[in-house]
Amino acid sequence: MARIVQKYGGTSVSDIEKIFNVAKRVANTRARGIQVAVVVSAMGDTTDELLELAGRIAARPPERETALLLSTGELVSAALLSMALREIGCDAAAFSGPQAGVLTDGRYLNARILEFNAGRVKEALESGKVAVVAGFQGADARGDINTLGRGGSDTTAVALAAALDAEVCEIYTDVDGVFTVDPQLVPKARKLQEITYDELLELASLGAKVLHPRAVECGKEHGVVIHVRSSFHEETGTIVKKAASLEKGTVISGIACDKDQVKIAVIGVPDRPGIAARIFSALAKEGINVDLIVQSIRRNGENDILFTVKEEDCGKALFVLEPLVAEIGAKELLHKHDVAKISIVGAGMIHSSGVAAGMFEALAGAGINIEIISTSEIKISCLIAADRLQEAAEAIHNYFGLEKGVSPGKSQ
Amino acid sequence: MARIVQKYGGTSVSDIEKIFNVAKRVANTRARGIQVAVVVSAMGDTTDELLELAGRIAARPPERETALLLSTGELVSAALLSMALREIGCDAAAFSGPQAGVLTDGRYLNARILEFNAGRVKEALESGKVAVVAGFQGADARGDINTLGRGGSDTTAVALAAALDAEVCEIYTDVDGVFTVDPQLVPKARKLQEITYDELLELASLGAKVLHPRAVECGKEHGVVIHVRSSFHEETGTIVKKAASLEKGTVISGIACDKDQVKIAVIGVPDRPGIAARIFSALAKEGINVDLIVQSIRRNGENDILFTVKEEDCGKALFVLEPLVAEIGAKELLHKHDVAKISIVGAGMIHSSGVAAGMFEALAGAGINIEIISTSEIKISCLIAADRLQEAAEAIHNYFGLEKGVSPGKSQ
Repeated sequence: MARIVQKYGGTSVSDIEKIFNVAKRVANTRARGIQVAVVVSAMGDTTDELLELAGRIAARPPERETALLLSTGELVSAALLSMALREIGCDAAAFSGPQAGVLTDGRYLNARILEFNAGRVKEALESGKVAVVAGFQGADARGDINTLGRGGSDTTAVALAAALDAEVCEIYTDVDGVFTVDPQLVPKARKLQEITYDELLELASLGAKVLHPRAVECGKEHGVVIHVRSSFHEETGTIVKKAASLEKGTVISGIACDKDQVKIAVIGVPDRPGIAARIFSALAKEGINVDLIVQSIRRNGENDILFTVKEEDCGKALFVLEPLVAEIGAKELLHKHDVAKISIVGAGMIHSSGVAAGMFEALAGAGINIEIISTSEIKISCLIAADRLQEAAEAIHNYFGLEKGVSPGKSQ
Repeated sequence: MARIVQKYGGTSVSDIEKIFNVAKRVANTRARGIQVAVVVSAMGDTTDELLELAGRIAARPPERETALLLSTGELVSAALLSMALREIGCDAAAFSGPQAGVLTDGRYLNARILEFNAGRVKEALESGKVAVVAGFQGADARGDINTLGRGGSDTTAVALAAALDAEVCEIYTDVDGVFTVDPQLVPKARKLQEITYDELLELASLGAKVLHPRAVECGKEHGVVIHVRSSFHEETGTIVKKAASLEKGTVISGIACDKDQVKIAVIGVPDRPGIAARIFSALAKEGINVDLIVQSIRRNGENDILFTVKEEDCGKALFVLEPLVAEIGAKELLHKHDVAKISIVGAGMIHSSGVAAGMFEALAGAGINIEIISTSEIKISCLIAADRLQEAAEAIHNYFGLEKGVSPGKSQ
């Protein structure tokens, strides 16, 4: 019998009526003779409300207790959805993360799944029940509750699909799928019918938040076919799978835009070995993720080192760098808000020449200056002025004809 | 090092301020060099709110899911109290019922504790931490969540005290202790300093709801000294322990009043063997608890069978009895609301004659008619008109001089 996993986010189960809507959708799938395991997030804003409660007790509440506290949100929605399923005549059983067999690594608030021992879930499915699993949580070897961090329920769903050897893991969300670019930015944006794990990873980590990167990584590792689709209608969304199954000719699948960037420049760095290492390890030690990095040789044996960090890390980064700049004998420390990163992503890029040139040409045509360029095998990113982001996205979308589906999507 | 268990009910942890008050009290005890394990109920009305949520999904939500749902209430309060303790500098760790080692019998909503394997709690205490345990819950052999029914947190606390071999189990509540009679009914009511398990069992099951009967039973079985006391001040409450430690001369410890009674009468029952059994097994099959039972021989080989049930069971009882009355050839089925049960309880009663006579005399002196009488070794109950309950309680309280402490209490 076919077996699938469906994951519903917090907005899909934010009240009793919506829970019944989800129950009906699940029951319809079950009625087609398919075994269904469902993973649910906490109802609506529950997680934020619980965090707020903890925040009223302590500025930095202990992680172990915070994980226990947060895990209750998903327990409630799993229990209620299971009740709703049974109420409409579809037999079901709810499981907490630990009951479902999620063994985690002991990092209380940002745990990784070590093993998914889905025996009880399988048993429930085989006895004809829908298994409803609380997402976002597991237990470590001591039996302590761990939560999986933001997007954790996506990871639970994909890991469960792997453990169950499910045909597909359906991620229900409030968007129709993965688009060539944010439709709010570029109205001509086209929904992709297929995308590879690697492309989605680049898109997701670049700011297209349809599916958590760790869930995509997990899907890639175990070859789980992921279907990102809307919970509001029955239309097919976007299928995420291995590159091999996509049609040839794919060059660019999408454009990712990220406004959450600050450019930091260390000017006039003496050209000695180990200086860059000192800068970036000081930042890493504080847990600051550094993105686009460029080092340019200027004159008189001096370099400029440019990079970007997230807005929230900017203050901490400057605090770390100020004494260091003096220490290494650099001339100046500058930073600039109001920058944005625009990236094109495509698995086919690796075999195509001229893609980077095309992107630069599109931007030049729109009169947009590029501050930093960074490339990988399947993406090209440019840092530009934040107020030119929309124009840039439109120009690139047009240049590569993304609305016409030169990229993947024609095969379905 | 001395070791105690403290239990705080839902009203004691109903908001963040109250949680900090509890934390301070716990920390003060800990600061005196005592190892403290704390058992908490869900915050305020959380349990009722969760039940209401479930009730909006199904008239009779599945028990397994209901238990999972309800268990989250105590997880939240345990996590928050542990955070508050750490915030005021008292190291602590929160445990769910299953983590604390509560193994239950698999009855989802009314489970019994089979074993309390308190290894992790002991470990926490021995490492200097306060252990905060979510009350009211455990896991069965399959790992499914079970809740312990109303008053379940009391039972968790007493069972934990037994498992930890604690000196005392302190039950913090919104009353000052156990009284000779409900102080709202009889202002002269006196707080008892000591009471035996058996007496409190009779009082509790008769309606003096200071401590759940199952908790008292558990305390009796394991010889746990229970201290019922107020969470609003530091005064000593009532100590519950074995009879042996109480002074001699104790006759009556208290008066219990219960208005939640309906009298049912099956009139003109043919005097044949097995008829009473049919009546009461039909009621038991529907889960209806029958209280005071009297069978009186009338005339012509016919009996009247009288008994009481709780108000909530009245409709169901009549539904069960109506066809049965016809079937067994009884003449009539009557029921009467507006009755109340008043009982006197005392471990010393067994060695004292004339106690029953004294009770009847007190009631007669007040001109109160007795409809049913029932006696056990340590209690005597009378069914009277509900609107005479207060007069009856005062008359009996005066008759036995309970305000002067003839009953237990003088020894401390």
